[in-house]
Amino acid sequence: MSVRIARNSYGKSRVRLIKVARGGLQHEIQNLTINIALEGDFEEIHTTGDNRLCLPTDTMKNTVYALAGETSEIEQPEVFGRRLADHFLKNNPQVSAVRLQIAEAAWTRMCFDDADHPHSFVKGSDEKRTVAINATRGLMTLDAGVEDLVVLKTSGSAFTGYIKDGFTTLPEATDRILSSAVKASWRYDDPDTATYDLFHSIRKTILEIFAGHDSESVQHTLYAIGKTVLERFPVVEEISFSLPNIHCVPVDVSRFGVEDRNCIFVPTDEPHGLIEATITRQ
Amino acid sequence: MSVRIARNSYGKSRVRLIKVARGGLQHEIQNLTINIALEGDFEEIHTTGDNRLCLPTDTMKNTVYALAGETSEIEQPEVFGRRLADHFLKNNPQVSAVRLQIAEAAWTRMCFDDADHPHSFVKGSDEKRTVAINATRGLMTLDAGVEDLVVLKTSGSAFTGYIKDGFTTLPEATDRILSSAVKASWRYDDPDTATYDLFHSIRKTILEIFAGHDSESVQHTLYAIGKTVLERFPVVEEISFSLPNIHCVPVDVSRFGVEDRNCIFVPTDEPHGLIEATITRQ
Amino acid sequence: MSVRIARNSYGKSRVRLIKVARGGLQHEIQNLTINIALEGDFEEIHTTGDNRLCLPTDTMKNTVYALAGETSEIEQPEVFGRRLADHFLKNNPQVSAVRLQIAEAAWTRMCFDDADHPHSFVKGSDEKRTVAINATRGLMTLDAGVEDLVVLKTSGSAFTGYIKDGFTTLPEATDRILSSAVKASWRYDDPDTATYDLFHSIRKTILEIFAGHDSESVQHTLYAIGKTVLERFPVVEEISFSLPNIHCVPVDVSRFGVEDRNCIFVPTDEPHGLIEATITRQ
Amino acid sequence: MSVRIARNSYGKSRVRLIKVARGGLQHEIQNLTINIALEGDFEEIHTTGDNRLCLPTDTMKNTVYALAGETSEIEQPEVFGRRLADHFLKNNPQVSAVRLQIAEAAWTRMCFDDADHPHSFVKGSDEKRTVAINATRGLMTLDAGVEDLVVLKTSGSAFTGYIKDGFTTLPEATDRILSSAVKASWRYDDPDTATYDLFHSIRKTILEIFAGHDSESVQHTLYAIGKTVLERFPVVEEISFSLPNIHCVPVDVSRFGVEDRNCIFVPTDEPHGLIEATITRQ
Repeated sequence: MSVRIARNSYGKSRVRLIKVARGGLQHEIQNLTINIALEGDFEEIHTTGDNRLCLPTDTMKNTVYALAGETSEIEQPEVFGRRLADHFLKNNPQVSAVRLQIAEAAWTRMCFDDADHPHSFVKGSDEKRTVAINATRGLMTLDAGVEDLVVLKTSGSAFTGYIKDGFTTLPEATDRILSSAVKASWRYDDPDTATYDLFHSIRKTILEIFAGHDSESVQHTLYAIGKTVLERFPVVEEISFSLPNIHCVPVDVSRFGVEDRNCIFVPTDEPHGLIEATITRQ
Repeated sequence: MSVRIARNSYGKSRVRLIKVARGGLQHEIQNLTINIALEGDFEEIHTTGDNRLCLPTDTMKNTVYALAGETSEIEQPEVFGRRLADHFLKNNPQVSAVRLQIAEAAWTRMCFDDADHPHSFVKGSDEKRTVAINATRGLMTLDAGVEDLVVLKTSGSAFTGYIKDGFTTLPEATDRILSSAVKASWRYDDPDTATYDLFHSIRKTILEIFAGHDSESVQHTLYAIGKTVLERFPVVEEISFSLPNIHCVPVDVSRFGVEDRNCIFVPTDEPHGLIEATITRQ
Repeated sequence: MSVRIARNSYGKSRVRLIKVARGGLQHEIQNLTINIALEGDFEEIHTTGDNRLCLPTDTMKNTVYALAGETSEIEQPEVFGRRLADHFLKNNPQVSAVRLQIAEAAWTRMCFDDADHPHSFVKGSDEKRTVAINATRGLMTLDAGVEDLVVLKTSGSAFTGYIKDGFTTLPEATDRILSSAVKASWRYDDPDTATYDLFHSIRKTILEIFAGHDSESVQHTLYAIGKTVLERFPVVEEISFSLPNIHCVPVDVSRFGVEDRNCIFVPTDEPHGLIEATITRQ
Repeated sequence: MSVRIARNSYGKSRVRLIKVARGGLQHEIQNLTINIALEGDFEEIHTTGDNRLCLPTDTMKNTVYALAGETSEIEQPEVFGRRLADHFLKNNPQVSAVRLQIAEAAWTRMCFDDADHPHSFVKGSDEKRTVAINATRGLMTLDAGVEDLVVLKTSGSAFTGYIKDGFTTLPEATDRILSSAVKASWRYDDPDTATYDLFHSIRKTILEIFAGHDSESVQHTLYAIGKTVLERFPVVEEISFSLPNIHCVPVDVSRFGVEDRNCIFVPTDEPHGLIEATITRQ
């Protein structure tokens, strides 16, 4: 009997980095967490324990720090990711493909009496700006996105008209809280397209449609957001969403002799709905 | 041989709540997590299993929802906490003391083209505004505070001149990153003092002194913050801090043939320093 | 311009369940966490907000409880998962595919003086027994597996002979600690094959090869395990691994005037290597 | 106005350690996480930034590794903790008190066909064996304990006869699941008393009484455990418990047309009851 390796990759995950740009009047900081995975000619590593074509994951980590240190300015994560991917491909003939995931956490500059502080920051929310790069020597795809962008609206959301069967207990809701931790990523038709402004315009569109949509379900809102992003941004090829439905369960306080105003809710982490879809062009 | 109960308490932890105030032109939301602990005449519950003086923790949870529902406006967490404490003391003669911990998470109203959205919000950072109440029938103390307020400065922090012994490997640093997840709580001499404005003024002072202080250590900065808060706010009796030192380890990129500009750091979660102190008036 | 839904699914995640079988002399318990995702004719839900073909995720959750309650005995998770998948397909013509992930946590019966306690248990490790089912009306695949099976060996592991470049700092190690949180899943050629005994035999093989293998790298050991499982268990079609390399960094205590015996290590969570591969038959 | 430091301490938290004892036929491992806090003459560190009496927390971490490396055998955590505390007091005249918390995680030796493997291990549950030491030059207290010992019983637990008020919705339960993540710590009248066997005998008593007690509430069972430990172990001065009530909510499957056998439960993390008490001798 014989076996083979159908597919394999290896790399370093959770490489954390804070970079400080000290050149200007104000310091700038950037806080990244990076996952690297390589594919390539790794057969012998597995089958005979021959590591001659093995770039250690420890070296991948050092490479992140070295390349980040080469530039004194803060780079957009898409730009830094492409430099990293190019480096691994250029210097490692045994590597056929590089996969990178970059998550950038936000820090806000402290500001006192309308004056920006030159070197002090407060950490922002758990929201991450993300970049996913898949690069071979011939092809690169680049997906920008957001993760853990937690949103909530207290009106403009219903869920009615669904299937009822013997296991149904959920009451229909014409006015419910809608909340999610948005994970979205969109592919640019050209990786050169990626800019800070474009990222923020798309992020704003996501929030705007979430807020303004007259929602019949998470799916309904997901589609409205995706459709609008594709309509407004011709450089976006497709957009994917993973939207947990963070259920906020209404508490009927009239059981306690208190007037019920549909105002008290229990936010819950589990179980949660999970709605996923990719919207693309025809 | 005989034994006794030296001390005991019981209650409900992690009661989560979202309250929506729908009365105005814009909806307001409040997101609280509440821990309740009661002390009192609970000897028989323990020793004989007689529950006649046991208010179930499930009822404590319902009480949170009922009392939150009684008011249609958003209340400051200090005010809501005092109503809760009063309720338990007034309605439960077997209860001698109530301890409450309230953590309020921040949500930011969405805003598009300078227009506030009436009912859509984005979750803020992990920072929580906290309230701790300890109340008996005769006495109440109220501590306001912050938790998980993550701050970082890229200049104005040193650590030198410390003890060296046979186990020392840390190099002195005249210009290091200083970062912490600030946990601070301060006691008002009069619980009626607690207001939204006062909380935010004290929070701002914490940030301001953190940012501007010429720091020789976390302790040095902690004391400077505490001293300033006590000087500026006569209503504060004392202030306590628990400050993890979130080490950002510099990476010497000159090992990689790259000019070292003291700009690349590895933020680490563990191990971490932990600095704690209470600053009070003479 | 027009857009389309390239793919979509929705369902309920983190449905938690404890089932008690009270029929025998001893109670048995089962602790499952279940993720459900459905694919099907959901176009209108997204595009027009018409929910007539939408089975609510809340009903999916209730279905888990109802079907679990239909049997008084504990079922193997593979059997329960198939009943669930069959139910959704049979009762929902709009559904074309069901994806289920089941994770079973282990509890150990308490035992005192060699006597099993009839109804008391201690929770085991974070290791989960997993089942993944992908079912359409024509085809079902079933993968059994383990997750978070944390293993460590203090000998029999080296990492040498790898690529050195300008960013290399890792010293070669001829005798290092090897540790991982094993995630492995294997596909049975026939879902009917899945049994408790088979699961435990494969799990034992994973541990045995991990322990006994003379390891030149995580990849080398991964392959050895995969090859052996395929050789020993003809019913396994292929096996996939996701193996974090939980680095245990040696501390050179000779810097502290202490004899270095290669015995003190710092276990770290991040960054970590991540080694993934699928081993299949030729 | 003048202020003073009412109390202060500082130290290193989450110092992680794996120690391998390679001396015998089989390797032994020990996995500890240690928190250190020092009190002493630290006034000037805070008020003037003078660090001459500051032992860096980084050095505390190194001290853990150095002292662990001094012995080639595995030590009981109580013994290692006392060596650490003694070291800090003996070598640091500025230190007046040392507080240590040690948590030991369990690893199980792999065993194949009744043969112990000499150097391979599987990680156990999240249960930790704990040691807390408070030491001054004149006095030392030592508390041994357990944390995150998750237990569950499916019979022998009721909760009835409690207070009902306008906010009560909990139905009485004559046969409910009782589950907790036991945190218990007990003080030995003499720190020299602490041994492996004693720890395990007390741990076994906790489980035995939990399992066998006819429980009317968590408090009732807590007291029964504490009383029995004090009765059986004269060397224990007092014992403290922090017991979350991990609610397992029954699902009434009769709503779904299924016979209800009181066998389907939803385990929940939040909110949870929290029962705390210290049982001591008269």
